[in-house]
Amino acid sequence: MDDPVLLTGAGGRVGEAILDGLAEEYEWRLLLHSPPDEEPDHEYMIGDVTDEALVRAAVEGVGAIIHLAGDPRPEASWDSVLENNIDGTQKIYEAAVDEGVEKFVYASSNHAVGAFETDQRTPEMYREDDEFLLDGTELPRPGNLYGVSKATGEVLGRYYHDTYGIDVCNIRIGNLTKGHPPIDYERGQAMWLSYPDCAHIHQRALEADYDFEIVYGISDNDRKYYSIKRAREALGYDPQDNSAHFDGEEKVVPDS
Amino acid sequence: MDDPVLLTGAGGRVGEAILDGLAEEYEWRLLLHSPPDEEPDHEYMIGDVTDEALVRAAVEGVGAIIHLAGDPRPEASWDSVLENNIDGTQKIYEAAVDEGVEKFVYASSNHAVGAFETDQRTPEMYREDDEFLLDGTELPRPGNLYGVSKATGEVLGRYYHDTYGIDVCNIRIGNLTKGHPPIDYERGQAMWLSYPDCAHIHQRALEADYDFEIVYGISDNDRKYYSIKRAREALGYDPQDNSAHFDGEEKVVPDS
Repeated sequence: MDDPVLLTGAGGRVGEAILDGLAEEYEWRLLLHSPPDEEPDHEYMIGDVTDEALVRAAVEGVGAIIHLAGDPRPEASWDSVLENNIDGTQKIYEAAVDEGVEKFVYASSNHAVGAFETDQRTPEMYREDDEFLLDGTELPRPGNLYGVSKATGEVLGRYYHDTYGIDVCNIRIGNLTKGHPPIDYERGQAMWLSYPDCAHIHQRALEADYDFEIVYGISDNDRKYYSIKRAREALGYDPQDNSAHFDGEEKVVPDS
Repeated sequence: MDDPVLLTGAGGRVGEAILDGLAEEYEWRLLLHSPPDEEPDHEYMIGDVTDEALVRAAVEGVGAIIHLAGDPRPEASWDSVLENNIDGTQKIYEAAVDEGVEKFVYASSNHAVGAFETDQRTPEMYREDDEFLLDGTELPRPGNLYGVSKATGEVLGRYYHDTYGIDVCNIRIGNLTKGHPPIDYERGQAMWLSYPDCAHIHQRALEADYDFEIVYGISDNDRKYYSIKRAREALGYDPQDNSAHFDGEEKVVPDS
């Protein structure tokens, strides 16, 4: 990717993980919702993804987009996700296809399929010996309106891919935490995504050759109810972390 | 269904087909976008589905909803479908679950899966001897932003069903025409839905026992790339019409 890469929502945690790992790999253009505490090391713009003029300026000249911006709260109101997540994502896609952007990486979420976690299946499905596994071919079952907005972002991507040919990779991001997996939280351990693996899967989504993909973005945890097979096959994702290798905050299994 | 049934978008063609066939079957409450030319035979309200107070009043006391309202144009703008179709549908669902409505029948559309009709597959897929068949378990592939809005309506239904238990039936309506199938239009003949079959499938969706369904609403056409198996099994849908039984406007094969 020689052209700049636009990273929207760059001020959030996923953006932090990506920039932690890939700061030197690309020429970044950051879109931030609000002024940063520290001056970024990269070109940046400040504003809202629902501001069409700003979006057009942000997308100008980039070769790829990682679109993270939106209201990230699982409990976000309908009005907020309708505007920030659904309408905002459509505006970015529209600008992207007008600009001839090649690749669009979309931060979808485990919340797009949260309602598969029924009372009947939990907590067993969070455990290593349970066989329940989602692979990205299932119809969404959002557990909240935030999840509805993320599933809608995936559908928007399908439309823009089919109609305009832009490559689209939807990454259903699990539970991203820095340094170590969540403690005393089986669900979070099952869908843990380490910072390095987060950066790596986004790099693969920028580099790999694909048309339209929906993949799960989690580390290679022993506990797992999201398959990472498609991410391995379509993107060449090769995660290095595993929540089972940690005892609390301590890594207890050395890298092989 | 002893309680009234709310029919939104009652002034459109689907609404006409439903009322043609089922006027006497239910106590209807109609929601119309604009004042009707003739005084309706049923209780009615006039206004917009994005008007929350009106929606609350329309839903009050009903036992079921058939939700047809929205911008019906395949070429509708994003702003229109975002407001009328996506936001409007969420507002109806929200009022429905607050009111304890039992059944929600949602007019989805063939446009939610229009992009399956690729240059490689057409026109062969419109013909009787072609085996391509969608069954409602596939992920949506909208061919336009209207189709995106319909796929989003289905996801909203999934969320409201999973979270609040309301029964939801999404009917992906084909090509509805009165009297006879479209002429010299293979695609339209393949997804033809006659007025009587349209009324019948909506009656079954009000009467049958189900949780969450996505079915195709077409007649039993010899040409077919949408399966009606699920509609038969889940709803007891038993269509009586078939576009192959017509020569132009004339019905040439008698009812068996």
